[in-house]
Amino acid sequence: MRPVAVIGIGQTKIDEHWGLSLRELAGEAALEAMNDSGISRVDAVYVGNMMSGSANHQQHMGAYIADWIGMRFSEALHVEAACSSGAAAFRSAFLSVASGEIDIAMAVGVEKMTDSPTAEITTELATAADSDWEKDQGLSFVALNALVMRRYMHEFGWQHDDFAAFSINAHANGVHNPNARFRKPITLKDYQKAAMVAEPISVMDASPMGDGAAAAFLVPAEHLRNTGRNHQIHVLASSAATDTIAVDNRLEPTWLKAAALSSSTAYRQAGLTPEDIDIFELHDAFTIMATLSLEAAGFAPRGQAPRLANDGAITPQGKIPIATRGGLKARGHPVGATGMYQIVEAVQQLRGTAEQNQIDGAKIVMTQNIGGSGSNIITHILGQAE
Amino acid sequence: MRPVAVIGIGQTKIDEHWGLSLRELAGEAALEAMNDSGISRVDAVYVGNMMSGSANHQQHMGAYIADWIGMRFSEALHVEAACSSGAAAFRSAFLSVASGEIDIAMAVGVEKMTDSPTAEITTELATAADSDWEKDQGLSFVALNALVMRRYMHEFGWQHDDFAAFSINAHANGVHNPNARFRKPITLKDYQKAAMVAEPISVMDASPMGDGAAAAFLVPAEHLRNTGRNHQIHVLASSAATDTIAVDNRLEPTWLKAAALSSSTAYRQAGLTPEDIDIFELHDAFTIMATLSLEAAGFAPRGQAPRLANDGAITPQGKIPIATRGGLKARGHPVGATGMYQIVEAVQQLRGTAEQNQIDGAKIVMTQNIGGSGSNIITHILGQAE
Repeated sequence: MRPVAVIGIGQTKIDEHWGLSLRELAGEAALEAMNDSGISRVDAVYVGNMMSGSANHQQHMGAYIADWIGMRFSEALHVEAACSSGAAAFRSAFLSVASGEIDIAMAVGVEKMTDSPTAEITTELATAADSDWEKDQGLSFVALNALVMRRYMHEFGWQHDDFAAFSINAHANGVHNPNARFRKPITLKDYQKAAMVAEPISVMDASPMGDGAAAAFLVPAEHLRNTGRNHQIHVLASSAATDTIAVDNRLEPTWLKAAALSSSTAYRQAGLTPEDIDIFELHDAFTIMATLSLEAAGFAPRGQAPRLANDGAITPQGKIPIATRGGLKARGHPVGATGMYQIVEAVQQLRGTAEQNQIDGAKIVMTQNIGGSGSNIITHILGQAE
Repeated sequence: MRPVAVIGIGQTKIDEHWGLSLRELAGEAALEAMNDSGISRVDAVYVGNMMSGSANHQQHMGAYIADWIGMRFSEALHVEAACSSGAAAFRSAFLSVASGEIDIAMAVGVEKMTDSPTAEITTELATAADSDWEKDQGLSFVALNALVMRRYMHEFGWQHDDFAAFSINAHANGVHNPNARFRKPITLKDYQKAAMVAEPISVMDASPMGDGAAAAFLVPAEHLRNTGRNHQIHVLASSAATDTIAVDNRLEPTWLKAAALSSSTAYRQAGLTPEDIDIFELHDAFTIMATLSLEAAGFAPRGQAPRLANDGAITPQGKIPIATRGGLKARGHPVGATGMYQIVEAVQQLRGTAEQNQIDGAKIVMTQNIGGSGSNIITHILGQAE
């Protein structure tokens, strides 16, 4: 496979975008990425989205978005892997360019959640779980994660307060991100008094719904030679793995095996270890998911990620900064778009354009997007070209 | 890119499968393909499906199906391009193997339509069209195609009877396919007295709903060297193109530009011309779509495909046999699965296992799967290795 570079990025603010249609939202991010890339052509468009068919009554998002941004006649495809749909679009675009088949690919993640009643969206989100054995038994997606969190607390002896550091860090970072859904810092007291959603998950453990879109352009790295471009950013690793769709089918529900598989493959592809990663943009849909990702990806021993968080290692000044622009918790989590926000933020960090969220000297960023309750996990490592 | 071979195929009968769940349906085709391939491992699973999120309340079909067939931990992804979702899954699998990233890929198309009321499915199908400017204006998918058919009849002077040959050929072929939805031949009289759905499209111009799944395994062609396998079947071309999502945005609504683009790219990739194609498994969702595909793919001059049909050129004994196992009209059209049925049938023809539908001496088969009203068109050419 040939090396692939990321050359253009775009994103919308995550918000309740009642004034923008689904395609206008995606188009805003896509056209910003196109302008940023300096390229006016696309050979293939990959759209990551989870629920447009039901929430927005529009399927066929590939042709729909390609047409809207003026790229009709290009190849275009909608890919879906629940909350990891964004990273799935990026990986599809990566493979199309790496294979030699496509010269200019765009990946765009988009989700418009706030047009529908919250109860409907809650039902839609549960379609990421096993419809027969989880959803139809009355388990919402938050409830599923609450069971995992409770089990984790039981196994490793942590209290609810021990997870506060994840939320406090995410909200502190979100303050400086103009595209974040929430830009207000929170305190331990805020965390403690937050309303419960499904015990032990409170609103301060859970990421919010929102509308948003993020996009990136990918081209063969060799095409950038001698173009004088600054910031040649390469995809050093791209890898995906699945686990059982139903959590109760796992021998160890507190171990994200798909994250371990996907991370270790990514490290091997890039020739790197966790020590080499400067930033880890992980999938903090819930504080328990941030916890489990850090462990499965090799940043903390099993059962010890809350210690990492409480020691300050996950803050911008720490050993392994996470959620540097607010993460899913504060930047927001428009499900099918989230994976692309992670990519866009990784590129910003590598370019040195992350404003007050900039991590000095960031050269290697890992992103990890999770679909379902750990059932589809996609990892990318991006780095500045030597 | 490295050459890719198809080594295993599987399919279910297309029917009202009320006794099988969504995953059981897909699993049946997938496991049959696995047995047929002689391989018990999959590195990546690509699932083509259009409407499971709304019709079956299950998204995340990649992990869902991989888990069900015992391939948890593999990479898995759901791809959607409306009625061309099946071919999109096959193309994704093809690219993953051709790139060198994946060694054993499976593509499976599945759709379970008959659990929902017909009116709901009609609404779901319309999400393949433009939600703002077509669907929400009251246009069903059949109505859209009826407008195109009427325009075609007006432009080129054909009568409704002139399209009968497409339906008669499809039903005649379906008689011999044990997996076909309909296995009864029809006469010109049957065609003439059929009930109208949206004039001029009658039930004999339109493909039926149904539940079904079809699957294939893909591996690097080089892996088959010296294995003594008969029937080494290679993917000679794989290509996709889009057009506007809304039909009224096209300068020429009776010309499938995406089919012309996708076909000409496929011919170039394979180093072939329409004269070299022994069988064309086209997307006869409506007789007008069969007509337009034949023209755009270079088998008939513009406006003249009905003549080809009436001259008998599309029958098994004709110059360019189509719908050899019944096509979408008689074999059936479980939308996200159809593209994979086309691939499975192409492989059967190349292996010489198409039973009484066998086209003698078939060496090159082209398949073409259409999403939306011509807005996403994916073409493959399969051939026996020299």
